[in-house]
Amino acid sequence: MHEIEKILGYKFKNENHLKLALTHKSFKGAQNNERLEFLGDAVMDLIVAEYLYEKFRHTQEGDLSKLRAALVNEKSFAKFARKLKIGENLFLSLGEEHNGGRKKDSILSDAFEAIFGAIYLESGLEVCKSLSIKILEEIFPQIDKSLYKDFKTELQEITQANFALTPTYKLLSATGPDHKKEFEMAVFFDDKKIAAAKGKSKKEAEQKAAKIAIEIAITENIK
Amino acid sequence: MHEIEKILGYKFKNENHLKLALTHKSFKGAQNNERLEFLGDAVMDLIVAEYLYEKFRHTQEGDLSKLRAALVNEKSFAKFARKLKIGENLFLSLGEEHNGGRKKDSILSDAFEAIFGAIYLESGLEVCKSLSIKILEEIFPQIDKSLYKDFKTELQEITQANFALTPTYKLLSATGPDHKKEFEMAVFFDDKKIAAAKGKSKKEAEQKAAKIAIEIAITENIK
Repeated sequence: MHEIEKILGYKFKNENHLKLALTHKSFKGAQNNERLEFLGDAVMDLIVAEYLYEKFRHTQEGDLSKLRAALVNEKSFAKFARKLKIGENLFLSLGEEHNGGRKKDSILSDAFEAIFGAIYLESGLEVCKSLSIKILEEIFPQIDKSLYKDFKTELQEITQANFALTPTYKLLSATGPDHKKEFEMAVFFDDKKIAAAKGKSKKEAEQKAAKIAIEIAITENIK
Repeated sequence: MHEIEKILGYKFKNENHLKLALTHKSFKGAQNNERLEFLGDAVMDLIVAEYLYEKFRHTQEGDLSKLRAALVNEKSFAKFARKLKIGENLFLSLGEEHNGGRKKDSILSDAFEAIFGAIYLESGLEVCKSLSIKILEEIFPQIDKSLYKDFKTELQEITQANFALTPTYKLLSATGPDHKKEFEMAVFFDDKKIAAAKGKSKKEAEQKAAKIAIEIAITENIK
């Protein structure tokens, strides 16, 4: 049994389908995984759309679309591909091999989609669903608006609606050497410091502080 | 049985699903068809992707994508919707009603997708496939690269590759009154007139002439 089949928990009915799905267009030969990727892309789109539709029964279309965009993209599918050890098993040209092709998000993501295109053709949508949702939930243990929501924006929406105020941010400290700086940012409601957090950039520290402030605002103040 | 069900050849298991799919967001009430449209959009994408994948077994991914884009779009889905008489059966606000909402491509296309989102939830992918492919083939009796290919470009590719020449176009005549002009354009290889065709615009006449010239070039000269 192929390494990918073991991790996936699926035995291909035709091993050539798996091979084709793993064949990058740089590899010599008549066929590559581009057609399967075309199909698999649509398969994954539908699976994730239905998953979100069922999971978030009271969420509007706009937020469902944002959630899907956060889950269905090259970067995320490259993570799925790494979990399945697709990179190690790709068929590439020597040139692409030397060019780091086994680690490229685009190549990994395409092969991941192609594998699901192949499984779809062999075994249909339901099998694809159960296999891919398992991976999705492993890679994204928390599927909610934190995947795309900007916490500073969200905090501002909450405070303006409930307290008619706009949060402000202040730098508390910047420590460490230049190449490894750490910033601590605090968020204030008027003059009151609500929360503070550290991060590798001011932006990251602000987002973390805003996230804490949202929790405080929701649990303590909005009653 | 609802008019749409008759045309579609499908009886909804739950009539409320059809009603929801026909409910535009402008209509008063808690729910509208946006979530179903989100789902139906992905359903149609997969159905058309698989249809093209199976129908064009030797066509590359790039051309499959172009074909899909020519079939899966607002304008095309609005045609499907008109065939199903969706416009006449929409639930709209009075404002949207007076605003011509029943005839808007965007509203029609969304409701069409929502109907297939609802059928998918009730009856699964296979039922959606057979129903929608029937409509697709009625609306597009000819599904091939003519849906997206620019014939002038194609002709030029052929003549440059085979004869190292670039076709030229000349206006032969412009007839009829200003508001109903008809143009006749001819395509030349060097000084030799290869084909001519009439159209409502010079561009249309050129495309038609190029299409004829392609057939001539393929059948007569490239041997």
